[in-house]
Amino acid sequence: MALLYKADPVRGEQWQRLFAKHAPDIQWRAWPDIGDPRDIRYLAAWQAPDDIETVLPNLKVLFALSAGVDQLDLGRLPATLPVVRLLDPGISQGMCEYASFAVLSLHRDMVRYRQQQTERCWQAHRLVPAQQRRVGVMGLGLQARHILNTLKPFGFALSGWARSEHHIDGVECFAGTGQLPAFLSQCDIVLCVLPLTEQTKGILNRQLFQHLPRGAALVNMGRGGHLVEAHLLEALASGQLSAAVLDVLEQEPAAPDHPFWNHRQIILTPHIAAMTQPESAFGVLLDNIRRHQRGETMLGLVDRERSY
Amino acid sequence: MALLYKADPVRGEQWQRLFAKHAPDIQWRAWPDIGDPRDIRYLAAWQAPDDIETVLPNLKVLFALSAGVDQLDLGRLPATLPVVRLLDPGISQGMCEYASFAVLSLHRDMVRYRQQQTERCWQAHRLVPAQQRRVGVMGLGLQARHILNTLKPFGFALSGWARSEHHIDGVECFAGTGQLPAFLSQCDIVLCVLPLTEQTKGILNRQLFQHLPRGAALVNMGRGGHLVEAHLLEALASGQLSAAVLDVLEQEPAAPDHPFWNHRQIILTPHIAAMTQPESAFGVLLDNIRRHQRGETMLGLVDRERSY
Repeated sequence: MALLYKADPVRGEQWQRLFAKHAPDIQWRAWPDIGDPRDIRYLAAWQAPDDIETVLPNLKVLFALSAGVDQLDLGRLPATLPVVRLLDPGISQGMCEYASFAVLSLHRDMVRYRQQQTERCWQAHRLVPAQQRRVGVMGLGLQARHILNTLKPFGFALSGWARSEHHIDGVECFAGTGQLPAFLSQCDIVLCVLPLTEQTKGILNRQLFQHLPRGAALVNMGRGGHLVEAHLLEALASGQLSAAVLDVLEQEPAAPDHPFWNHRQIILTPHIAAMTQPESAFGVLLDNIRRHQRGETMLGLVDRERSY
Repeated sequence: MALLYKADPVRGEQWQRLFAKHAPDIQWRAWPDIGDPRDIRYLAAWQAPDDIETVLPNLKVLFALSAGVDQLDLGRLPATLPVVRLLDPGISQGMCEYASFAVLSLHRDMVRYRQQQTERCWQAHRLVPAQQRRVGVMGLGLQARHILNTLKPFGFALSGWARSEHHIDGVECFAGTGQLPAFLSQCDIVLCVLPLTEQTKGILNRQLFQHLPRGAALVNMGRGGHLVEAHLLEALASGQLSAAVLDVLEQEPAAPDHPFWNHRQIILTPHIAAMTQPESAFGVLLDNIRRHQRGETMLGLVDRERSY
């Protein structure tokens, strides 16, 4: 009985040490040295190999090494293969830190002060109390709830939007396409942590920006595919949006001539909001393997219909 | 019985409206139109007028419109005149927001990513878990305690240093000059919110930086006078410090040729961490006036020996 690892080799060595120490009964294999493919019951991967049924005939579970699974082509995987997302507390922590950095930066005009520093301009701007700053989160899954809890003590007026109805203490919740305009119309800062699906692809577009109050700001820490990049440039140029903090792009790494690099209204970071930390993720993955071995429900099982 | 206001005229109009509405028994006067000086019992000011005893013969209390009083030359004020600092919850909130922005920026390498953005470089760096990031606060007064409470949920390893002994839950406290090197030696990020006094002037200097771990980072949201600016440049150049977030300078506004403007390792903001908000400060000031009228102890009374 073996587990096959197919992702970053450097972090793979950390994973391997953790398995050797805490789960010596599970044989470790690292792609592409898979040994006898018939041994392999579990695949822990960022992306699946092509023709997975032939390559790994006895595979029981695919563990994605990420919170989202949009990088996997679910339609090409066997319909009966359970796919499990990685609900790593280290990822949550990174997301909360990045979201707080981004929201505080926008709330406190730091994009403007960054520009003023390059222009040698010493000028203070009016400070809006957090209670008057309306922060809305798109997506109300586990990560979004952690983020909302982290933002709460600062006193922001919080709201959230998702496909289905949610109830979260101290957060005004909106649901479905019908309530999206009402949600947007009361967001000074809107933060996207949606999963990337057929329904959410390109959702951050011209039409959505037009529902926001003039001068609102955007944070995208979902996926690059959520944002229509040309529409963001347009909204920043017209003043409909005042600033954006982006951690993800349609094409990563960004091309050297990408217009976001030197944009004075954009803070761009290289997909660093959260990284899977083998130290914290190992326990979650091993727990799911043990659950599968005992025939129990695994945590983070992907619903193929919803794609998350 | 009148109160004389001597500070920013625009915010003065907000103060005046609040007094007219909530304390009509207190006559409002705004510098320099002081009317009959004998009416004036209370002075609410950023800086005191020269020769205050002659100008305001019946003055009972000087209310500083700031949390610190270093801008007042306490030695030139009558020894018997009570001086009261403004403990505005709006100031605390601003300080906590700025401190969180600054610490998260340094914790998450945002000074480096800002530079990478200008260089069109898409490169992620290792993410250090907050539990392994040691954040130390210099000064353990009211503002510092609020800041430590705000940083706590992020999971940082927190410590603090002050002149006298303190006990704060979840914060390792160091006291006095003797324990300063021990405190510094365990700070990856050190944040200064000390009051500016004869003892703390120039405290952020070469010698202090040498006690920090190599590559540590500095946040100064105290006063510009705490920092020896030339020593910071030296420490950033040598690598002893990796980055700094500064909201205050020795001379404000910064001169156009100040070396901090275009320094790639410095985030410089124009003294905006916190601003007195008449909305929240009014209640605090009025409460102190009523306390004085009833002969009770006022909150924030300055100890002339300590200068805060």
